[in-house]
Amino acid sequence: MSHTSKISDGACDHVTEFRLVHADCTWSRQTADSERIEGQLSDAKIYESASEDGVTWTVVSPIVFTYRVIQCERLLDASNDTLLFGHISNPTELQALNNNSKVMKRFVVIDETVNDLYGSQVAAYFKARGVMYKILPLPTTEENKSMTLVTKILEEVHKFGIDRRTEPIIAIGGGVCLDITGAKTGVNFANCKNKLGSYIPPVAALLDRSFLCTLPRRHISNGMAEMLKMALMKHRQLFELLEKEGRHLLDSSFQTLSKIPENVHTDAASLSMRLSIETMLEELAPNLWEDDLDRLVDFGHIISPELEMKILPALLHGEAVNIDMAFMVYVAHERGFLTEEEKRRIIVCMRNLDLPVWHSDCTLDLVLKSIAERLKHSGGRLRMPLPTALGKARIFNDTEESTVCQAFKKWCDEQCETTMKPE
Amino acid sequence: MSHTSKISDGACDHVTEFRLVHADCTWSRQTADSERIEGQLSDAKIYESASEDGVTWTVVSPIVFTYRVIQCERLLDASNDTLLFGHISNPTELQALNNNSKVMKRFVVIDETVNDLYGSQVAAYFKARGVMYKILPLPTTEENKSMTLVTKILEEVHKFGIDRRTEPIIAIGGGVCLDITGAKTGVNFANCKNKLGSYIPPVAALLDRSFLCTLPRRHISNGMAEMLKMALMKHRQLFELLEKEGRHLLDSSFQTLSKIPENVHTDAASLSMRLSIETMLEELAPNLWEDDLDRLVDFGHIISPELEMKILPALLHGEAVNIDMAFMVYVAHERGFLTEEEKRRIIVCMRNLDLPVWHSDCTLDLVLKSIAERLKHSGGRLRMPLPTALGKARIFNDTEESTVCQAFKKWCDEQCETTMKPE
Repeated sequence: MSHTSKISDGACDHVTEFRLVHADCTWSRQTADSERIEGQLSDAKIYESASEDGVTWTVVSPIVFTYRVIQCERLLDASNDTLLFGHISNPTELQALNNNSKVMKRFVVIDETVNDLYGSQVAAYFKARGVMYKILPLPTTEENKSMTLVTKILEEVHKFGIDRRTEPIIAIGGGVCLDITGAKTGVNFANCKNKLGSYIPPVAALLDRSFLCTLPRRHISNGMAEMLKMALMKHRQLFELLEKEGRHLLDSSFQTLSKIPENVHTDAASLSMRLSIETMLEELAPNLWEDDLDRLVDFGHIISPELEMKILPALLHGEAVNIDMAFMVYVAHERGFLTEEEKRRIIVCMRNLDLPVWHSDCTLDLVLKSIAERLKHSGGRLRMPLPTALGKARIFNDTEESTVCQAFKKWCDEQCETTMKPE
Repeated sequence: MSHTSKISDGACDHVTEFRLVHADCTWSRQTADSERIEGQLSDAKIYESASEDGVTWTVVSPIVFTYRVIQCERLLDASNDTLLFGHISNPTELQALNNNSKVMKRFVVIDETVNDLYGSQVAAYFKARGVMYKILPLPTTEENKSMTLVTKILEEVHKFGIDRRTEPIIAIGGGVCLDITGAKTGVNFANCKNKLGSYIPPVAALLDRSFLCTLPRRHISNGMAEMLKMALMKHRQLFELLEKEGRHLLDSSFQTLSKIPENVHTDAASLSMRLSIETMLEELAPNLWEDDLDRLVDFGHIISPELEMKILPALLHGEAVNIDMAFMVYVAHERGFLTEEEKRRIIVCMRNLDLPVWHSDCTLDLVLKSIAERLKHSGGRLRMPLPTALGKARIFNDTEESTVCQAFKKWCDEQCETTMKPE
């Protein structure tokens, strides 16, 4: 008898399924056909099987994550509740907090530069709301994104003291600040990007585009690469909005309220952000722990990790992502998924957003090495997201190396000379 | 308009519920009343609400944890698959692994003392199975249970290289070894017990009682305190088994196979372990992340954390737990939940297991301070598990301080003199 069949037999024979019922402070196992005790039924189940080798209990426990994303305005106005209570979705819980006379505490991790710009406003907000607060400014750069900084935060949180169930830590800043403080996150370790991390979503992510007015132009451009990613993968309307209004959004740092003729109730800045959030949540919500490795959001993230680690800090994350996406557009064109005109429109849109569409360090060797790494870490399949039209995409495992090489040649021929010269 | 009603209005009005459907590699939001696209439906949902202040998306994403507990024999026999494949509950996955010609890798963290005793057998097992392995022996004591040791493990794991999806890290040793390597776990930080940690269950916990033969008697006694906890809280049969056979189980290190007259198919050692596992899983499975703070498994853990931190390493964890339980038995008796005879039987059982039932450092001050801490960390309620009969318990919030003081006095009067003299 092979090892396989032996274990499978053990697992398949004599398996008893138990549900769990809560009564009189105690959880009890019950088989499906036993008489039901009155009480709360758990979503968890226990499967018990006995064999000559022993007893196996298989426990299936669902955990439900509830988290919010809030697109809002005037986040630091003392009259705005969002910063204090935006994470609470249960009205009863909110009522209880408001009726509680205990002084609330909030611990804030903030990027050093953001603190110089907004620190006094943050302090004023909490003072006005009667909240006991501690603001910890940190140099949240990719180079500092390590367990050392995480430990520093934990030590300060411990000193300050918070109730971990009701007093969420607040992170204000860019991606690195959110990564070291938060949750669906990672820190670099042993020279590897995001080697350590977790997949616990923050209770709330708050977005107020007025903060973008102090962000350098290059960083706004950088952020727009990820918006373009979602547009190319699944939303033609968002692509056309970025194509038409993207340059203006960049020039105005998303601050002006240019109304969109087709939709008089909104402006290009709010609408493009909203569509980016919605498309991103659509892909993330059903796959929080990335059990499904076929992920459209990986577009732009096949070659860029290698490129980033090679030439950090010369390229920002979104810039590396855009170079990867530009190359993949050539692969998609080479495979016949995009017409010459569609390819041209995408590249023009990227250039209008001041994003690099080619880089001399992105060599064919690096491309092929990245694809080999991808195969290793994706369960043996390439899982390459490629656009198949404007705002449509699929995941492919069958891209030939020769196709990659031809696409690379054409990409270099067409983009190498003209690069760094936005239209 | 108060802040509360404003937010609640925002959350209650105009909320649109979306389900998520997967088709053509893409996830799409759909309202409940829209026409259903063919495709996989996610368990996750997105709720969208708009107000004058902005847009809020509330994402509800369930994650399902599947983990196994296996009570088995001959774990290090090369013919036994459990150590290699015991964590796999899906037969298809198992088949795939067996058909895969790639050399498997296993990283093993082992307690130093356990390594001296069993290291060569562990190595022989993996050699015989053709597995590439690395054994990392560590001094896994409570004093060393810190992020430093965790980082050491992570560095070595990184050097060795494993596939995080298919090659689970194996921890062999006691509680501290499992805590630093594993999952539903914690490390000490800033002088606080288990201050940092997570609630991710290990894919499998394997229990082979033959390993107990090399464990010092005091540590077996120590482990039996947690078995007694489950017995007192919810299983009279387990209590009576420990009452009758406990001393013999301790003397024999759970090695002899004394058949139980009432159940000829099993022995006292296996049956008591099995009932301990089953009762523990019943309470843990429905409450993996401790969202419900009313937990019977907290019995013995109200006073013991303070006591442990005060006199570490003089007391082992289970010993501190037992002192706590013995005191709580007096509280239950004082409140009229246990008869004098039931109280006596419980204390005699504890003494027969060589467990301390009183300690001079467990002062009334420490008891009252522990209860105050409990109130602070349990959402303002005491949530005190107390036995209400042999093998039955409930959770109480209404124990008066005067009752605690009277119970303390009687506890000292009756147990202080006789302590350390097992019958």
